Amino acid sequence: MKRKHSYFFTAFVFLNALLMLLEYSRPLTADEGMFPVSEIARLNLRAKGLEMEPADVFNAEKTCLIDGICRVNGCTGSFVSPTGLIITNHHCAYRAIQSASTTEDDYLRDGFQAKNLQQEIASPGYTVRVTESFRDVSTEVLSAVTEGMSFLERTKGIDRRRKEIEKRAEAENQGTRAEVAEMFAGKTYVLFLYTYIKDVRLVFAPPSSVGNFGGDVDNWEWPRHTGDFSFMRAYVAPDGSTADYSPDNVPYKPKRFIQVAPNGANESDYVMLLGYPGRTARHKTASFLEYEENVRLPYIVDLYGRQIEMMQAAGEQDRAVALKLLSRIRSLANTEKRSRGQLKGLKRAKIVDSRKASENKLQSFIDQDPERQAKYGSLLRDIDGVYASMSLKAVDEANFLNLRLSNQMLRLAYTVYDAAVERQKDDLEREAAYMDRNIDQTIRRSVLLQKDLDVATDKAILADLFQRMAKRQITPPQLNGISIDQLYEGSKLGDPEFLKKCFESTPEDLKGMDDAFLQWAIRLHSDYLAMRESSKKREGQLGQLYGELISVKQLFQQTSFVPDANATLRMTFGTVRGYSPEDAVYKSPATTLSGVIAKTTGVAPFITPQKIIDMHSSRDFGEYVHPRLNDVPIAILYDTDTTGGNSGSPVLNGKGELVGVNFDRAFEATINDFAWNTNYSRSIGVDIRYVLWVTDKVYGAKHLIKEMGL
Amino acid sequence: MKRKHSYFFTAFVFLNALLMLLEYSRPLTADEGMFPVSEIARLNLRAKGLEMEPADVFNAEKTCLIDGICRVNGCTGSFVSPTGLIITNHHCAYRAIQSASTTEDDYLRDGFQAKNLQQEIASPGYTVRVTESFRDVSTEVLSAVTEGMSFLERTKGIDRRRKEIEKRAEAENQGTRAEVAEMFAGKTYVLFLYTYIKDVRLVFAPPSSVGNFGGDVDNWEWPRHTGDFSFMRAYVAPDGSTADYSPDNVPYKPKRFIQVAPNGANESDYVMLLGYPGRTARHKTASFLEYEENVRLPYIVDLYGRQIEMMQAAGEQDRAVALKLLSRIRSLANTEKRSRGQLKGLKRAKIVDSRKASENKLQSFIDQDPERQAKYGSLLRDIDGVYASMSLKAVDEANFLNLRLSNQMLRLAYTVYDAAVERQKDDLEREAAYMDRNIDQTIRRSVLLQKDLDVATDKAILADLFQRMAKRQITPPQLNGISIDQLYEGSKLGDPEFLKKCFESTPEDLKGMDDAFLQWAIRLHSDYLAMRESSKKREGQLGQLYGELISVKQLFQQTSFVPDANATLRMTFGTVRGYSPEDAVYKSPATTLSGVIAKTTGVAPFITPQKIIDMHSSRDFGEYVHPRLNDVPIAILYDTDTTGGNSGSPVLNGKGELVGVNFDRAFEATINDFAWNTNYSRSIGVDIRYVLWVTDKVYGAKHLIKEMGL
Repeated sequence: MKRKHSYFFTAFVFLNALLMLLEYSRPLTADEGMFPVSEIARLNLRAKGLEMEPADVFNAEKTCLIDGICRVNGCTGSFVSPTGLIITNHHCAYRAIQSASTTEDDYLRDGFQAKNLQQEIASPGYTVRVTESFRDVSTEVLSAVTEGMSFLERTKGIDRRRKEIEKRAEAENQGTRAEVAEMFAGKTYVLFLYTYIKDVRLVFAPPSSVGNFGGDVDNWEWPRHTGDFSFMRAYVAPDGSTADYSPDNVPYKPKRFIQVAPNGANESDYVMLLGYPGRTARHKTASFLEYEENVRLPYIVDLYGRQIEMMQAAGEQDRAVALKLLSRIRSLANTEKRSRGQLKGLKRAKIVDSRKASENKLQSFIDQDPERQAKYGSLLRDIDGVYASMSLKAVDEANFLNLRLSNQMLRLAYTVYDAAVERQKDDLEREAAYMDRNIDQTIRRSVLLQKDLDVATDKAILADLFQRMAKRQITPPQLNGISIDQLYEGSKLGDPEFLKKCFESTPEDLKGMDDAFLQWAIRLHSDYLAMRESSKKREGQLGQLYGELISVKQLFQQTSFVPDANATLRMTFGTVRGYSPEDAVYKSPATTLSGVIAKTTGVAPFITPQKIIDMHSSRDFGEYVHPRLNDVPIAILYDTDTTGGNSGSPVLNGKGELVGVNFDRAFEATINDFAWNTNYSRSIGVDIRYVLWVTDKVYGAKHLIKEMGL
Repeated sequence: MKRKHSYFFTAFVFLNALLMLLEYSRPLTADEGMFPVSEIARLNLRAKGLEMEPADVFNAEKTCLIDGICRVNGCTGSFVSPTGLIITNHHCAYRAIQSASTTEDDYLRDGFQAKNLQQEIASPGYTVRVTESFRDVSTEVLSAVTEGMSFLERTKGIDRRRKEIEKRAEAENQGTRAEVAEMFAGKTYVLFLYTYIKDVRLVFAPPSSVGNFGGDVDNWEWPRHTGDFSFMRAYVAPDGSTADYSPDNVPYKPKRFIQVAPNGANESDYVMLLGYPGRTARHKTASFLEYEENVRLPYIVDLYGRQIEMMQAAGEQDRAVALKLLSRIRSLANTEKRSRGQLKGLKRAKIVDSRKASENKLQSFIDQDPERQAKYGSLLRDIDGVYASMSLKAVDEANFLNLRLSNQMLRLAYTVYDAAVERQKDDLEREAAYMDRNIDQTIRRSVLLQKDLDVATDKAILADLFQRMAKRQITPPQLNGISIDQLYEGSKLGDPEFLKKCFESTPEDLKGMDDAFLQWAIRLHSDYLAMRESSKKREGQLGQLYGELISVKQLFQQTSFVPDANATLRMTFGTVRGYSPEDAVYKSPATTLSGVIAKTTGVAPFITPQKIIDMHSSRDFGEYVHPRLNDVPIAILYDTDTTGGNSGSPVLNGKGELVGVNFDRAFEATINDFAWNTNYSRSIGVDIRYVLWVTDKVYGAKHLIKEMGL
């Protein structure tokens, strides 16, 4: 896409721009921060180790490094060739590899390599976005809020205004995707425009024994020995416009691609990451953290832990079932272990206490001035009150919500009916998932979900949720005496044709269908609507309160601050370095192939392909050997500020070249979502030398090495 | 005791002395080896860092360092004052602290301090030994073996001869304890004479929150933050002879005591340990290791794991019950975790494979020469055959044996009846536990065991064993239809008076008693006798085979070797140093009080006394601060070669001064029992500076500091 609208590229203006500038004039903590790319110019990166012009990293006026970065579903990717080749994590491509796998062609187990473009495999459900432009739209969004609005009206008014802006922007910029992102809750909003690619294909994946070596045991841990990378490719219509999958599509030509640096990065080297970090909660109150620590995280650990157990047991019996469940197991296991790390970190680092201490100082500041006291005096207490009431209902609400999130049949049934109801409304009035611009993707996701349905597991998960409700003296709602077995016997939602027909039906049609799950979902619908409204009310209330909190913090606070991560493009920089997780323990920032071999037990998840074992024995490292370690380097550790969504982010050296692919954090850094700390916040990337050694030497994909210009 | 018998102090002569000398002339691996003290002179320790004459460490002719070392039950201790003050581990004194504790005076929880000699508490069941002399008696022992003896006769013949030698030695040296130790199995025997002290008292113990900080979670782990030390004192009759406890007894005056060095030891410093390491299996075959890996260790982990669970659950309900069970829980937990570490280590370090490889080489050497082949050709296969047949019966035998080991009531009943039967024999014909020289200690142990009996737990453990048998289609033997409840209802063995009476009864008396447990034990007795005989037969067979194996290994082997540990006095030396347990991880060899505070969660086993927290905050470290770390050092790590029994061993600097008290090994070093490795075999000691800081500054026991001459 050509950048027609340079007016978009005004500086990233916050609502209280003047105050924020004052903040930024104070010295920054060296490495903290997931900076909006508009901030790059202000960070004095050349002094930190950047060896290119900051304006070549991000520049509103011309092609720059960020044009080589993309979002791949919830992950980040980098274009590494002029013809749309993307490198991202194995775990980001996992769903695509799983989709393409059968018990005969088990690419999860054996890896995959397309020898040419024709062999590349379409990955339904995958999209790629490239950030094209952004501009502040806070004033326009917040003008939807008027005096005397209820909290519910506030949320709905803001949502509608955001959708209007998005729709208008997409109409003005054909073929793009527009998203209005909330930066500071209830306060600042930015419109992002993306090139939006819907034909994404699988190019190369190592076997899971490499790409997921160490599995859930090593996940969130350092030292790490995982080759967590894969290659995909973006395709567009022959005329360059974005299009759904077609055999006639051609590789996308990015405006810029990231040059691979085959010599990697070593200890003490400057590195920076670009990517789409998902969510952080650094501006949330201590009461929110207490809610997380005491309510939500323990619930997640318990529920997911049990569901993982059930799915693993089912998968161990039957590889075909495993191939349906592995991606979901992996995703839940990832969240479960992260939640455990966060629980541990919250307790150990006493984060609630320190946030309370800051809030006490803020409260004193507020109370010092009668006018401030009148305006903000009850602010913190009011926010605390919202979380207190959330906490009381949280477990029952979560059990109820998980009926339709964890149970896949009810999820399908509910989506079908909810879609039908919503689609009777005007486009802008609908829930986002059912708007014209999103409905195809929503249906596609349901189809994928149906494909991976394993009835026995689905039943077991539902029964477990019923038990959880029973323990709290709650009867599963709206069942009308129907048993779990009867629900499944009486439903055709597992049939692709029936599902397709349902998505074409009106609510009235659906009400007339004799389908047990569908009818249960229809009976539940009003309960879920009530919950949705109550959640929007809460969102409205918190939005208003947090907007005020940011205002008064700006009046008070002595350090700079950056908005919480919100899945928009950010930059973070730092250094390759080890850390001391505890007294008398030091972890250095590079692992080696010898470490892979030492961890290899032959029992999953510590299996290594025989070829790699043999090549290690014969020291067949080629040009990918680390000079000092005299071994193939596997993974590197650095102190940049990342969170989920940075999976697949390029790890770049000072010249903006690719030295690694980010894929995880150390266990202590699971707490990044709540607080960053220079002592233990460490992120993990696969070393580019391991990527190249595996791709080139082990699996012989020389054409990819060549395509990357090496 | 005055050394009258300097003829004992002939050099430590092995049977094949000439060959062994040849071995010793080859260079030793730097730090491996639990050396008999007679070897010290040959080790060139001055070059390694010893700053005193080796002859002042051990000298057969005059007072030397080893006179300051003692054995405290299964542990080691050091005399640290001229008046019998002993320092050993908190976990070695644990049983004594538990015995002295009540729910009112809970010394396990609160710690204990005697302000003067009168307040020191007798510790029944505790003995202290000091090695006085030793001499080789192999020829005399092995002369009991004659051509054509069965394996059973061989074992019995050797046992009887050992007892004769011991009895004669004790008669010739009034007041001493004599033990003939098997050095190389079936091949070399050494008579040790000990001063044997039976009145041992508790002097000082920190609270378990210090002495057992980290509990089973940290046990077998580095980094470590445990103040695992206590003080006891040895008492003798006023005339200096050893005697049972009496208020008239006086402190024992050791020939030599170990000087405490309050400046401790730091990284890279030379250290040496003296002590009584229990058992190692470095000369055992690969087939023995396979038996351990596949049969015995998994059985122990499973059985003890379950029993620990049951005892912990019982103790959590009731502190009085906990005070009965804690010592046993701790002992089982220690074995269980060590066994897990060994299982992991055996697999990871591929120790079976490497031992098989050595045996293959030995076999080739044997097969090269027809005469050797004729003599030793089937040796390894024969040994393998013994372990193979052991493995087949192992689980059922272990279940059967554990009926009377894990269940305390049957243990009492069996001991009572077994003692009565054995005591009808001539003293030398009896099982060692029932010989006149041992019977008092055996009865004392039964009394202690009865004191700590918790019926509910004891029943649960028995029921669990019955279930284990049922799973293998085995009916609990000789029960005659009596239920578990009926056994307990029908027995008075929990009554101290009744137990006393039983120990005074003949087998016929006991048969006439209407006691359900006693009668069950009597019915089981012949089955246990059969098992004992079969085990002696195996011992005889293995003794003969291993004797031959040592002979042929001496013919073949290119490196020196030292007999396996056997609870006799040994010396090991090395350096304070860290290690890398895995790729990219380095553990340094000193921990700090700040590390204690960081680990402190307030939840057991990570509770720290408030006084210590406060003194850390106010940096009240006194003279015990570590100069570089600027903190109180807690524990140190070193690469000496230790095993169980080295608990409480003095960690000595090059001058022979006390710089720490050994108490554990790193997890990777649990494998020490099977193989030692310079890369990961690390032992752990509490730093003397922490000992002194806790004793002096935290709990104010200035009189002890003074007594140690500081």
